[in-house]
Amino acid sequence: MKKSLGAKTIVYPAPVFIVGTYDGEGKPNVMAAAWGGICCSQPPCVSISLRKATYTYNNLVGRKAFTISIPPVKHAKEADYFGISSGRDTDKFEDTGLTPVSSGVVDAPYVKEFPLVLECKIIHIKDLGLHTQFTGEIMDVKIDEDCLDEEGKPDIGRISPFLFDAGARQYFGVGDFIGKAFSIGNEVGN
Amino acid sequence: MKKSLGAKTIVYPAPVFIVGTYDGEGKPNVMAAAWGGICCSQPPCVSISLRKATYTYNNLVGRKAFTISIPPVKHAKEADYFGISSGRDTDKFEDTGLTPVSSGVVDAPYVKEFPLVLECKIIHIKDLGLHTQFTGEIMDVKIDEDCLDEEGKPDIGRISPFLFDAGARQYFGVGDFIGKAFSIGNEVGN
Repeated sequence: MKKSLGAKTIVYPAPVFIVGTYDGEGKPNVMAAAWGGICCSQPPCVSISLRKATYTYNNLVGRKAFTISIPPVKHAKEADYFGISSGRDTDKFEDTGLTPVSSGVVDAPYVKEFPLVLECKIIHIKDLGLHTQFTGEIMDVKIDEDCLDEEGKPDIGRISPFLFDAGARQYFGVGDFIGKAFSIGNEVGN
Repeated sequence: MKKSLGAKTIVYPAPVFIVGTYDGEGKPNVMAAAWGGICCSQPPCVSISLRKATYTYNNLVGRKAFTISIPPVKHAKEADYFGISSGRDTDKFEDTGLTPVSSGVVDAPYVKEFPLVLECKIIHIKDLGLHTQFTGEIMDVKIDEDCLDEEGKPDIGRISPFLFDAGARQYFGVGDFIGKAFSIGNEVGN
């Protein structure tokens, strides 16, 4: 029996995207965004949504670029800090001891210590209400070499990402292998 | 040292959203979508992206509504099947033995056996290239009562969602608890 929870923003899983931008003076900033996801395969695009009140908002409008760094479990505290502090008040890289690296591809910085990075050029902005959705074309993806498997493919175990539980506002790691996509469904049906 | 992977659609985690729609004759259909995520808190909105070639595409354009059912691990095979078969060729509910339920809130069906459902009215459509992004306002969220904890909140363990590893095209469950969001970051910084 299903029960109504009302109109709420609950899906599983939600990501923890660390959005990197430069401000007007070139100061690197990062914030955490759980609202977003891949939105097109060709051209490869990703959307992120954030409030106009964030320090990142004007950086995005000004620079038309951002990065997404995927934080590993061992830096969950720093990723959470990026979500509860503001670049208006502090230098989040200094506070955490993490290192900003200038993307050579787009006008934005990423987090050196985080294993996977998307470098994005903004191609579409849509004001939806409290949040504005920024869609970026993914110009390149960079990964720490030690996060590649023997075949040179990204290894989720070595990347060690985590997810946001929007219902209870908690973080969880990645669990057991369930099956191959576009494959296990072949056992079903006619 | 970071290595370039090229312009690819890889983020962690990606979701497995089961998108429910009616076609022109009222036949219920479902497909799996990994491209999407919450995109606004007020009004509560979620975006999904899919190819024009899908059977769902015309259903979305015609009905201006969809549901997202979150599949549990025990139905991962059926969820995968929803992604590799087409409603143009078959009745996916008949094939899997799962049950379509008409949303009383929007003009779309959801999957009875899946524990969490978002009921959405389309408010924005954006053609991005291979994929078109549909943004829906979340009109209601429904959950199986046995997936609520003692305080009446959604319990991720009982919901038992899983994630899509877009790098290696595999599914993984939810792992260990890492920490409370908007909280563990307080240990960091000044």
